Amino acid sequence: MATRQPDLNIALIGYGFMGAAHSQGWRVAPRFFDLPRQPHRSVIVGRDAERAAAAADKYGWIEVETDWRRVIERDDIDLVDICSPGNSHAEIAIAALAAGKHVLCEKPLANSVEEAELMARAAEEAASRGVFAMVGFSYRRVPAISFARELVAQGRIGEIRQVRAQYLQDWLVDARGPMTWRLDKTLAGSGSLGDIGAHAVDSVQFITGQSIESVSGILHTFVTERPLLGESIGLGGTASDEFGPVTVDDAALFTAKLSGGAIGAFEATRYATGRKNALRLEFSGTEGAIAFDLERMNELEFYDRRDPAGEQGFRRILVTEPEHPYASAWWPTGHGLGYDHPFAHQVRDLVVDIAEQRQPRPSFADGLQVQRVLGAVEQSAAEGSAWVGTEGH
Amino acid sequence: MATRQPDLNIALIGYGFMGAAHSQGWRVAPRFFDLPRQPHRSVIVGRDAERAAAAADKYGWIEVETDWRRVIERDDIDLVDICSPGNSHAEIAIAALAAGKHVLCEKPLANSVEEAELMARAAEEAASRGVFAMVGFSYRRVPAISFARELVAQGRIGEIRQVRAQYLQDWLVDARGPMTWRLDKTLAGSGSLGDIGAHAVDSVQFITGQSIESVSGILHTFVTERPLLGESIGLGGTASDEFGPVTVDDAALFTAKLSGGAIGAFEATRYATGRKNALRLEFSGTEGAIAFDLERMNELEFYDRRDPAGEQGFRRILVTEPEHPYASAWWPTGHGLGYDHPFAHQVRDLVVDIAEQRQPRPSFADGLQVQRVLGAVEQSAAEGSAWVGTEGH
Amino acid sequence: MATRQPDLNIALIGYGFMGAAHSQGWRVAPRFFDLPRQPHRSVIVGRDAERAAAAADKYGWIEVETDWRRVIERDDIDLVDICSPGNSHAEIAIAALAAGKHVLCEKPLANSVEEAELMARAAEEAASRGVFAMVGFSYRRVPAISFARELVAQGRIGEIRQVRAQYLQDWLVDARGPMTWRLDKTLAGSGSLGDIGAHAVDSVQFITGQSIESVSGILHTFVTERPLLGESIGLGGTASDEFGPVTVDDAALFTAKLSGGAIGAFEATRYATGRKNALRLEFSGTEGAIAFDLERMNELEFYDRRDPAGEQGFRRILVTEPEHPYASAWWPTGHGLGYDHPFAHQVRDLVVDIAEQRQPRPSFADGLQVQRVLGAVEQSAAEGSAWVGTEGH
Amino acid sequence: MATRQPDLNIALIGYGFMGAAHSQGWRVAPRFFDLPRQPHRSVIVGRDAERAAAAADKYGWIEVETDWRRVIERDDIDLVDICSPGNSHAEIAIAALAAGKHVLCEKPLANSVEEAELMARAAEEAASRGVFAMVGFSYRRVPAISFARELVAQGRIGEIRQVRAQYLQDWLVDARGPMTWRLDKTLAGSGSLGDIGAHAVDSVQFITGQSIESVSGILHTFVTERPLLGESIGLGGTASDEFGPVTVDDAALFTAKLSGGAIGAFEATRYATGRKNALRLEFSGTEGAIAFDLERMNELEFYDRRDPAGEQGFRRILVTEPEHPYASAWWPTGHGLGYDHPFAHQVRDLVVDIAEQRQPRPSFADGLQVQRVLGAVEQSAAEGSAWVGTEGH
Repeated sequence: MATRQPDLNIALIGYGFMGAAHSQGWRVAPRFFDLPRQPHRSVIVGRDAERAAAAADKYGWIEVETDWRRVIERDDIDLVDICSPGNSHAEIAIAALAAGKHVLCEKPLANSVEEAELMARAAEEAASRGVFAMVGFSYRRVPAISFARELVAQGRIGEIRQVRAQYLQDWLVDARGPMTWRLDKTLAGSGSLGDIGAHAVDSVQFITGQSIESVSGILHTFVTERPLLGESIGLGGTASDEFGPVTVDDAALFTAKLSGGAIGAFEATRYATGRKNALRLEFSGTEGAIAFDLERMNELEFYDRRDPAGEQGFRRILVTEPEHPYASAWWPTGHGLGYDHPFAHQVRDLVVDIAEQRQPRPSFADGLQVQRVLGAVEQSAAEGSAWVGTEGH
Repeated sequence: MATRQPDLNIALIGYGFMGAAHSQGWRVAPRFFDLPRQPHRSVIVGRDAERAAAAADKYGWIEVETDWRRVIERDDIDLVDICSPGNSHAEIAIAALAAGKHVLCEKPLANSVEEAELMARAAEEAASRGVFAMVGFSYRRVPAISFARELVAQGRIGEIRQVRAQYLQDWLVDARGPMTWRLDKTLAGSGSLGDIGAHAVDSVQFITGQSIESVSGILHTFVTERPLLGESIGLGGTASDEFGPVTVDDAALFTAKLSGGAIGAFEATRYATGRKNALRLEFSGTEGAIAFDLERMNELEFYDRRDPAGEQGFRRILVTEPEHPYASAWWPTGHGLGYDHPFAHQVRDLVVDIAEQRQPRPSFADGLQVQRVLGAVEQSAAEGSAWVGTEGH
Repeated sequence: MATRQPDLNIALIGYGFMGAAHSQGWRVAPRFFDLPRQPHRSVIVGRDAERAAAAADKYGWIEVETDWRRVIERDDIDLVDICSPGNSHAEIAIAALAAGKHVLCEKPLANSVEEAELMARAAEEAASRGVFAMVGFSYRRVPAISFARELVAQGRIGEIRQVRAQYLQDWLVDARGPMTWRLDKTLAGSGSLGDIGAHAVDSVQFITGQSIESVSGILHTFVTERPLLGESIGLGGTASDEFGPVTVDDAALFTAKLSGGAIGAFEATRYATGRKNALRLEFSGTEGAIAFDLERMNELEFYDRRDPAGEQGFRRILVTEPEHPYASAWWPTGHGLGYDHPFAHQVRDLVVDIAEQRQPRPSFADGLQVQRVLGAVEQSAAEGSAWVGTEGH
Repeated sequence: MATRQPDLNIALIGYGFMGAAHSQGWRVAPRFFDLPRQPHRSVIVGRDAERAAAAADKYGWIEVETDWRRVIERDDIDLVDICSPGNSHAEIAIAALAAGKHVLCEKPLANSVEEAELMARAAEEAASRGVFAMVGFSYRRVPAISFARELVAQGRIGEIRQVRAQYLQDWLVDARGPMTWRLDKTLAGSGSLGDIGAHAVDSVQFITGQSIESVSGILHTFVTERPLLGESIGLGGTASDEFGPVTVDDAALFTAKLSGGAIGAFEATRYATGRKNALRLEFSGTEGAIAFDLERMNELEFYDRRDPAGEQGFRRILVTEPEHPYASAWWPTGHGLGYDHPFAHQVRDLVVDIAEQRQPRPSFADGLQVQRVLGAVEQSAAEGSAWVGTEGH
C-alpha cells in the first residue's frame, strides 16, 4: 500500500440502526487500519430533511440530501452505502452501479429472489467495469467467525458432517409489544428468517465454504396481531391503542443439505426468551469441532480430535491474539471487541478490495445465494415442509 | 409408610450397561430412601450361564437363570426388570404381566409401534389387576429434569412457545470404529433416534406436560459400513477385519408440533464431535425459560421474565437443595449426583407406587407415545419430510 | 489379582454425614472394582444404641456396638473406619493400630498438630508391622483431581509458579442459622480452615507434589453468636431461642510458599453467598495451566502453551474417558459421577494397597503435613499475619 | 443540556496504547452521546516529532507538539489528557492545573504516594477555581461494573462480607520474552501491582463504596532477568541478545480490610497462564452476591438470596439493556461492547461534569487512595506481610 490512491467519497442512504453502525465503521476504520484510499463521510441521505440533518450532525456526515437519486448523479461520490429498508435495495443499488458508484448494501440483499437476481446481474456487469458491490453481512468480520473459516479451510476439523445454527433473540416475547416495520412483510420481506436467519445462513456458508443446496422447513407466527407503534425505541417502541396484523414469520426452523455432504439444522427466532443476540454455530467434523455464540463474540470453541486421548476438550479460545484476524489492529491480547468493530473490518476489507480492483466478498452473488436459501425455506414451508432446492431460487 | 409391606423379589433380565445401572439402582435405593417394600436382588437372567454367573457375582444377585421364562413361572418373583435388547421387550413384558409380575422395562419400550401397542394394552389390563408396568426413562428422575417439570407446572415460564432438544454424542465419529448391536436395525430397532432421541422426546413430553402431535424429519447415516466388532468395550470395542452394513440412522433431525401449541426442534446424533452426553433441552415460554445440559446434570438454568428489568438473566441453579426433587435423600447442598443416582430414584418411585397401588410413570402408555413419535419420524423421513401425525403411530 | 485373599471385616465408627458416605463407598466399590479382598460391613459403632441400630439398618451394617473399644478388641475386625468427630480421632486410631487393625480415618486427621504427630508416629510404627493407616481426603479420588496430578507429574504444565485454591460454601450466610458442632472449637478444632481449607491444602499438595513450607494468613469470624441448634438438618438445622458463641473461624485467607518455588493464595469460607461447594483450584505453570471447580466435578480445564499460537485456550475436558483415573469402572463416556463415587475409589485403592502390603496414600504423615499447615495458619493469624513455617508444626 | 457551551479543545500527551484508547474515546463519544461541550482533538504531544506526527495522522489530531510545556502555555487548550508514563504524571498534571487546564490523567495516578499527594492537593485547589481533574480508571465505566455499583448501592446484596479480586494476565509467562518499560521500576513505579492491581483496587472501592483501610501482602518476581527489548509489539516485543534486570513485581498477593467491615483477597499477576485479561471480582453479601470477569465484560453475575428457595442461582445478566448504564447510547439489546467503549463513557462523564462544574470521579483524591493502598502493600511486603494501614500512605 505504498502509494496512496485518491480519497473515497461516501454517500450513506438511511440513518437508522444500520446507518449508525455503518457510520461508526467509516469513522473508525481509517484510525486503526492503514487504508489505501481515505474514506470521507460526504453525504447522508434521508427523506425527512430535518431528521437527516440531525443524523448528519450526530454521525458526522458533511452534507445532507433527501433524494438518493441526487447523490447518484453527483460526480464526486465514489461509493453508495445502502442502509435503507430492504424493499428499496434493488432500485438504489442497480442505479448506483449503473452510475459507476461502488456499492455496499446492507443485508438481506433484497426482499425477494427476483430482485436479488437483478442486483447480482448488475453487480457482475459493473465488476467488469471495475465498479464493485458488496453485501453487508458484517458478522463474517467478527474475528471468531473469520478464524473459524480459517480453521475449517486448514482442515483442522476435517470433513464437516453436521452443522447447527441458531439465531436466538427474544425482543418479541411480550405479545403486547408494538408493531414495527420489521413485522410488516411489505417493508421487511420476511421476519426472523430474513432478518436474522439470513445471518445464520451466510455465516454457515462462509465458514464451511459449502453452499446450502436444499431445505425443508416451517415458518411460524406466534403473535398474529399487535398494537400499532407509538414511538420507536431501539428495535421496539411504545404501543398505541390500535392493532395491526403481523405479516411475517416469528420463527423459522429448517433442515438443510450442504454441497459438501453435511446436513444442518437451522433456527431463527425472536421468541427465545432470555436469549438476546445468540447466533450459535456448531460444526461437527471428522477431526474436530467448532462452536460459537455471538453473545460471547470474543470467544471461539475448538475441539481437536488429534489431541492426545484423555486430553481432548473444547478449548475456549479468546480470539484477541496477534494470530487472529483483524485483532492486531486493535488492543492487546484479551481486550475484547464489541458489536461495532466488525463494521470497521468491513470498511477496511471493502476499501482494500476496491483499491486493488478485486471483487469484495460477500458479493451480491453471495447475497443472492442466501436469498435463494431463504426463498426455498419459504416455499418449503408453504408446501408442507417438502424439500426444495436452492438452485431454482 | 408406617406399616412395612412384604419384600419385593426382583428378577433382572440382562447384564449389559443397563443391567449394571439397574442393579446399582436396586442396591442403593433402599439405603437412601425409606421404601415401603424391601427389594431383593433375587435372580439375574442371561443366556450365557457363565457370564450370567459372573454378573450375579459382580452386581450382587443371589441366583442365576438362563431362560427368562423360568423366572416368570416362579411364584417368589414379584417384579421383572427387563434390560435385554429392544427386540425382546414385548414378549418378556407381556408374559411377565400376564403372570402377575410387576414390570420395569428399559427404554425404548419396543422396536416398533406395533409391539409397543401390544405392551401398552397388556399393561393397562394388568393394572386393572393391581399389576403395574413402568418404562425406564431414567432421565425423568434427574433432579434438574424433575424440577424443570415442577417449574413448568407452576407456570413459572408461562405458556411454552418453543422447545429445543438435542441429544449429542460423538462415539461414532471415527469411521473405523466397529459395528455393535446398536448399529444393527434388527436388534436395535433404530439408531440415534431410538437410542437417544427417545430420551429427548420423553424428556420434552415429561417437562412440558404436552405430547408431540406431528413431526417432519430426516434420518441420515454418515458411515454406511463398518468393521465387525472384535471385543466389546464400553459402547464401542475393537475392530475386526471384516465389514458389515450399518442399518440404522446415525443422526435424526425433526421438527415437531406439540399439543399445547409449542413448536420444537429435535436432534439426536452420535456424530457431534466433542459432545459426549449432551442432552440439551431449552424451553422458551411467555414468562421465562429453562435450559438444561446433561453434561452438567446438577445444574438447571432458569430465566424469569418477572425479575426486575435489568436484573434478568439465566440463573444457574445447583439442583442440590432440600427444595429439589430427591436431593434431600443424598448429600448436603452443592454435593452433586452422577449418572447412576436417577436409577435409585426410579426404584424408589416404582416401589412406592407399587406399594400404594398406583400407576407408576412413565407408564407403558407413555412409552408407546414416545414410540409413536419415533415411528412418525421414520415415516416422515421416508416420505420426504412430509408431516406425519403421531396418532396413527 | 489372581488369587483372592481373605475377606476384610470393617468396623465403622460414626454414622453422620461421613458415616453415610463411607458406607456407600464400602457398599459400592466391590460391585464396580475387582477387589483382592472382599470387604464386609460388619459392625457400626455409635454411642446411642437406638440411633446406631437405625444406621446399621439404613446403611447395611450387620452388627451394632456402642463402644468403639469393644470392636478394637475383637479378633474378627480387620479395619476400623473412623468417621466420628475430630476430637476422637487420635485416641481411636492409635488404639486400633496398636491392636493390629488397619485404619481409615476421616479428615482432618486430628484437631491439633500434637495429636496428629502422635497418630503419624503410631501409623509409621504400625506400617512396619504390615498394619496400614490412611486419612480420608476423598477428593484426591475425584477423577479430575487425580488426572490433574497426572498431568502435572507428566510435565504437561511445566514448572508451577502460582496456585489459586478457594473452597467456597455459603451455608452460614444467614446469621440466624443455628449453632452446630462444626462451629464449636472444642469439637471441631477449627472452622472453615479445618473443615474445608484442609481439602484445599491437601488437594494442592497432592496435585503439585509439593508441600507448603510457610504461610501468612488471617482467620475471621463474621457472626460471633448464633441461636443454639434445635433439630439437625443436613449441615445445618432449626434454631432454638438461646444463643451461644461461635468459637471457630468463618473464613480463612492465607498466602503460601511451596517447596517447589510456587506461591499460593488460599481461601476457605462458608460465607461465599451463592457458592455451594466450590473447591476451586488453579495451577499456573510455565507450559500450561489447570483449573478445576468441584461444583463441576466431572470437568477439568487444561491450557496447553504448546498448542499452536492462536489455537490456545482452556480445554474443558470431561473426565469420563477410559484414559481417565477410575472412569472405566463406571459408565460410558460422558456419563458423570457424583459426590459419593470417590468414596468407592478410596475403598478400592485402600483395599488394593492393604492386599499388596503397600502404604496407602494419603498416609497419616500426609495428614500430619496438612495439619501443620493449618496450625501454621492459625499461628500466623494470631501473630498479625507473620510468616510461619510448617516445619515446626 | 439545552444551551450548548463552548467547545473543548484537548491536548493529548503520549501516543502509546493509552494514547490510542483515549483518542478513540474523544473521537467516538460525541457521536453516541449528546455532549454539552464539543471536544476537539486539537494537539497531540510527543517527544519524537516524527512519531508524534504519525500518531496525529493516525488518531486524528490536528496539531503536533514535542514539548508538553508548550501546550500548557497555550490559551486555546482547555483540557490536558495525560497518557505518558507514570513518572511524568505529577509534573504535567500539576502544571496543567496551575495553568487552568482541566486534566484527565491515566492511571495509576503517580509512581509514588508522595507524588500522588501533591497531585491531589493541586487538584483540590484547582477545583475551587472551577478547574477539574480526573484519573482514568476506565473500567469504572464498563457497564457491568457501573451496574454492580448500582446493585450494591441499592442494597441488592445486603452488607458485603467478602471480596475476591484477581487481575490475571499471562503475557510474561515466557521467561525469554524481552524487557519493556513496564518491567523497569524507574519508569513504571511498580509491576503487576501498579499496572493491573490498581484496577482491582479501584474497582473494588468503586463498587463497594468502601475504602481499603489496611493490607497484608507479598510481592514476587518469578523471572528476575530478561533479554532487552528489540522491537516493541503490543505489550511485549522481540528480544535482543543482552539481558537486564526486572526491577518490578511479577505478582502481588494481598489481604485487605475494608472500611465497611468486609475482608478482601487480592491478586495481580502477569503469570496466570491462559488468562489474558481476567479482572475477576466477587462480592459476597448478606443478601446476595455479584461476580464479574473482564474477559466476559458484557456479563454480570448476580445471586439474589431473596429469590424463592430452590430457585436461587447466579444469574448471567447481559448488561446491554436500556436499564443498564451507558447501554442505551449504543446498540440494541444483546449487542455487546468492547474494550474501548468505556473510554467513550469516560469522555462523556468528564465533559458533562466539567460543563456542570461538578467534580468528576474518580478524582485525584480517589487516585491517591488507590496509590496509598499500593504503597501499603509494598510496605507490608517489605515488612514480612505485617499489616499496614493505608492512612499514612
